This record gives sequence, C-alpha cells and structure tokens, in this order.
Amino acid sequence: MDANPVLAETIRGNWVENRHRGAFAVIDADGTIIASAGDIERAIFPRSAIKSMQALPIFARHADEKFHHTPEELALACASHHGEDVHVTKVAHFLDRMGLSVNDLECGAHVPTNPAAREAMRAAGGEPSALHNNCSGKHSGMLSVALAMGIPTAGYVGREHEVQKQVRAAVEAVIGEPLSEGKCGTDGCSIPTYAAPLRAFAFGFARMASGKGLTPEFALAAQRLFDAATSNPLLVAGTGHADTLIMEAFKGRVMQKIGAEAVQCGAIRNKGWGYALKCDDGNIAASQAMLAKVLLEIADPDDAQRKLLEGYAHQTIKSVRGAEVGELRAV
Amino acid sequence: MDANPVLAETIRGNWVENRHRGAFAVIDADGTIIASAGDIERAIFPRSAIKSMQALPIFARHADEKFHHTPEELALACASHHGEDVHVTKVAHFLDRMGLSVNDLECGAHVPTNPAAREAMRAAGGEPSALHNNCSGKHSGMLSVALAMGIPTAGYVGREHEVQKQVRAAVEAVIGEPLSEGKCGTDGCSIPTYAAPLRAFAFGFARMASGKGLTPEFALAAQRLFDAATSNPLLVAGTGHADTLIMEAFKGRVMQKIGAEAVQCGAIRNKGWGYALKCDDGNIAASQAMLAKVLLEIADPDDAQRKLLEGYAHQTIKSVRGAEVGELRAV
Repeated sequence: MDANPVLAETIRGNWVENRHRGAFAVIDADGTIIASAGDIERAIFPRSAIKSMQALPIFARHADEKFHHTPEELALACASHHGEDVHVTKVAHFLDRMGLSVNDLECGAHVPTNPAAREAMRAAGGEPSALHNNCSGKHSGMLSVALAMGIPTAGYVGREHEVQKQVRAAVEAVIGEPLSEGKCGTDGCSIPTYAAPLRAFAFGFARMASGKGLTPEFALAAQRLFDAATSNPLLVAGTGHADTLIMEAFKGRVMQKIGAEAVQCGAIRNKGWGYALKCDDGNIAASQAMLAKVLLEIADPDDAQRKLLEGYAHQTIKSVRGAEVGELRAV
Repeated sequence: MDANPVLAETIRGNWVENRHRGAFAVIDADGTIIASAGDIERAIFPRSAIKSMQALPIFARHADEKFHHTPEELALACASHHGEDVHVTKVAHFLDRMGLSVNDLECGAHVPTNPAAREAMRAAGGEPSALHNNCSGKHSGMLSVALAMGIPTAGYVGREHEVQKQVRAAVEAVIGEPLSEGKCGTDGCSIPTYAAPLRAFAFGFARMASGKGLTPEFALAAQRLFDAATSNPLLVAGTGHADTLIMEAFKGRVMQKIGAEAVQCGAIRNKGWGYALKCDDGNIAASQAMLAKVLLEIADPDDAQRKLLEGYAHQTIKSVRGAEVGELRAV
C-alpha cells in the first residue's frame, strides 16, 4: 500500500523532528474533486466528525415533531462538547424535557475535556457523569429518536438497536456508500462506527451543504443541523477549541467538526463543497494544521479568518521555560 | 523521500484506524547490522534517549573524582524521572551535596510526570519546581561537570557553554559521527539536541555496552552508567513506566531509555548490541509497541520478560465504559 504524503511536520531548531502523513478530499455534490491529497478511497473511521449525519434520524423519524428540538439542542446533537457548565446544563435540560435523565445515557462518564471545567470539578471534589461525556448531546438526540419511534431506549447504543440502524441508514443515504459489518468498530462512546472511503464522507458533507442528491426531507434536515451547529459553535466544541473558533470566524459559512484520531470533516456551505481529512497516525494537532492549510486554500478567508487559520497551520513548540524552539506546521 | 514502513497500527473492531511508521537499527560495536527497518541513515533528534551518553563528561571531566557520584545519582543523570518523591528527594540531595540547590537548575519547572505524584501535589496545593522536571537529574550531573571544571555554572544549558561542548564531544566520540549546528535544536529542558543518523545512535549504544572502540576511560564510564541505570530502574523513569519495568525484568541485561517524540534507545548488554528506534510521528505508545517487538526478537526474553513485552506489543484500546474495542499493535 502506498504511503500517503507528509501533510504536516514538526521542526525543532533547523531540522525536521516528526512527520505526519494524511489524506484529504474537497468535493462538490456532483462528486467533482476540487482538491485532494493521498489515498482518498481508503476507508477510514469517521468517528465524531459525522455527528451531524448521525443526527439526521431526529428528522427522519420525526423526533423533531415530537420534541421540537431547539437549535441549541441540535447543535449539541452534532457536538463533541467540552463538558463546560453550559454544555452540561443544556444536555441535562434536553434530557429532562424528554422525561429522561443522565441515567438513560449509555455513553459512559469521563472528565470534562475543557481544562478549566476539569479543574473546577476537581477543586469541588466532584465526579464526572455521563453528562460530561463529550458525546452526551449526540446520545440525547439518539434517545429522542427512540422515544419518537416508541421503542425502548435501553441498549440504544447497540449495533442491532433500531436507533443505530436508523443512524447507519442515514449515513449510507448521505455518503452514497453502503456501510459494512466487515469494516466496523465501536466508538469511545459505545455506538458503532463504520469505516468508508474518505472521499465518501467529503461527498456526504457536500450533499448536506447543498441539499443536492438528498431527499427534500434530508436536505432540509441537513440545513437545520448545519444552521444550528454554525450558529452555536461554542456548543459544538468548547471555549478556545479550533472547531468553535473556526465556525465563529466564518459566521455560518463553514461547518467544521473534529473526530477522534485526527479526522476533520465539514463543508464550505456557500460553495456547496464538503471536505474530509484524516491524519494517518491519529495526531489531532497535526490534523488541525492540515485542516487549516486546506481551509486557507479553499474557504476564501478574510484577514481575520486567515490569521486564525495561520495559527493552526503554524503551531509554536516551546521549551519548559517557554522559549520558542520549533513548530508544528502544515506542508 | 521514501516512507518508512508501518511498524505499528491501531485496530478498531475489524479495521485499521491509525498507522505509525518508523525505523530502527540493532547494531553491534563493529557496525554490523543485526536487524533494521526503514531509513536508518536519516538524522533524528535523539532527545532524552541518549542521556547516558550525555552523562559521560561526568567521568571525562573527573567530576566523579570530585563528588563520588553514587550509582543512584548516576542513574538520575541518565533519567527522565517521573517527579515522584523518591526522585525529587534524591536530586535535591545530589544538588545539596555539591553546595547547589534547585535555583541552580536551568531546566524549568513542570508538574510531575507520574499521575499519582501530580495528584498529590495538586491535593496539597503545591507548585512544581525544577526538581520535578524529568531532566533534573541530568542537569544535576551537568552541574557537577561545571563545578569539576571550575567554571561558572550559570548558563550551563547554552550551546556555547563549556559543559555542552563537553557533552557534544562525548556524544560524537561515542556515536562516531560529527554533530552539526546545521542539524540542531533546543530540547524541552533548554539544552541543545543534535540530530544524527539513527544508525549512529544504535552504534553508540553498542560501543557503550561492549566498550569496543571507546577509550578505556569512556568504556569504564559507560559500564558504570549502564550498571547504575539498570540497577536503579525506578530512578531512570518511574512507577509503572515501560523503561523501568523492562530494565527490572531484564535484571541488568537490557539498558533501555525513552526520548521525547518517540525515540527509544538502548542496549542488549550481554550481546554487546545497541539499538535505536524512532516512530516518525512522535507517538510514544506506538514507539513502545515497536520497541517491544524488537526486544521480543533480539533480547532472548524468558517467559516473564516475554509477557511484559507482549503487553506493549499489543495494547488494548477501551471505550469510555471500559469495553475492549481495539488495540495498538506492532506489525
């Protein structure tokens, strides 16, 4: 198997220290490749980068008609949130509104992703609950689907549960590829994740951004989800995170979502282009450098947006004493 | 530039998620390559993996005659210690014995690497000092060199300070390659780090293990340093760390040292073989999987040693709820 190209590297002093390989595709809804690097047909696990696709059954199964999800709740359904108070409070309220609680979440508990929130919890002697899990919003959305379908919520994370079948069908419909038990794993939050070609995820985001090739129902659902996420970027990630800052800076024009192990997916909404990127070795910071370079080239950034992206494309490495000793940079 | 081979990968469910490339060399003191993979002539930053080489001026400049370093102090000079009480106490005593203190260390302060030590410090409301820096033992050794040379210690981390010139000369003598300002950076602890071919570091460890090709003075110094490190594996890293566990398990037969950004160097002492390994992307866990596979193949492990190494060659990946969902494995 050929190696993907080096798309990011770290420099220490005047010599390369680390190399990060990867692939990306930028595609329109007709399947035309706008830009790409590496093997875009290799199947990757999209992980949390496609939470907006996984949220489509909220509309397909009419959970939205039953619960009238707010834009904030839809944003949380698309989120890998950082467990800050704002996230935890809103997810708890979302569940409460459906007559559910933290006890119905099957994602497991982990400490908040946000360092300040983690520190505050520690200082208060608190313990994390499933509400703090970065996926608790997505899980709440999945629970709303189960309730709308009138089926038991217990076991909703299982591959054979009707909710996950609905999620799988929605993703297949959007990316235009069958998903297979032969390329399947379990995500950190216990739901199934299916690998598919990198190209297909970019294509799916282009279709969600443009509505082209989707049923009118899915096209509208995709627009509502992208509107919700890009209008509430703090809820989709957290304070200071790249996804939040990028979506804030692009004021609705860019949908951006990270996935575990260095996946980056999103859309340039005004152009109807979708993109998908994976750093082969799972390094998040390197994938953000790669993403920044792609967005610099395809997203027509203004000065402020460019400045933000340049900060990810060139990340300073410091010594313990704080001296600049190198950088992680996109190449 | 050709890509190094994939030497480790992560599997999620039944599909590959991440790929880690790298190179390694196992060499004897005559320069014969016992085993290798990838581009072993590519210059890499050895970082902390060659602290035992960097400690040689303690002997070359007769600091050992002045201060009579204990084996524990020599082990700390070769260490990336984890900031546990045992490390901090012994480094403080080492400095005190030389009429120095934490204020003379120029490595900077960071929280203990060991999670329990970090937690205890946090619970006690303590602040880390330079003693907790994983390099404080190496720095103390370097300070001993400055004192033995009768020169000011201030600025001993600088590239032009006589201590660092001595360190550079010792490394050059052992690896048999000139080091260059053209391939130089600053380590996290503020001292210079020079890149050189991966092969040369393996060769240097073979020469230190066997004494072959070294001056009698360096041969003896290398033996004392390896004896000290392998007799005090807890001081060289910390509780539960691979380096500590591997050196404990091999009872003096294997010298093993990690370096930042996924470098692994060491020696099979009874065979006189040195090895050096670098994971291209800087992933520590992947480099430990690669290292484990190399040691399984070349170090003649007994059953207990094999079991330990297999645990690094196959590292379980769990979901937030603790279910096994994949593994990081050497390939």
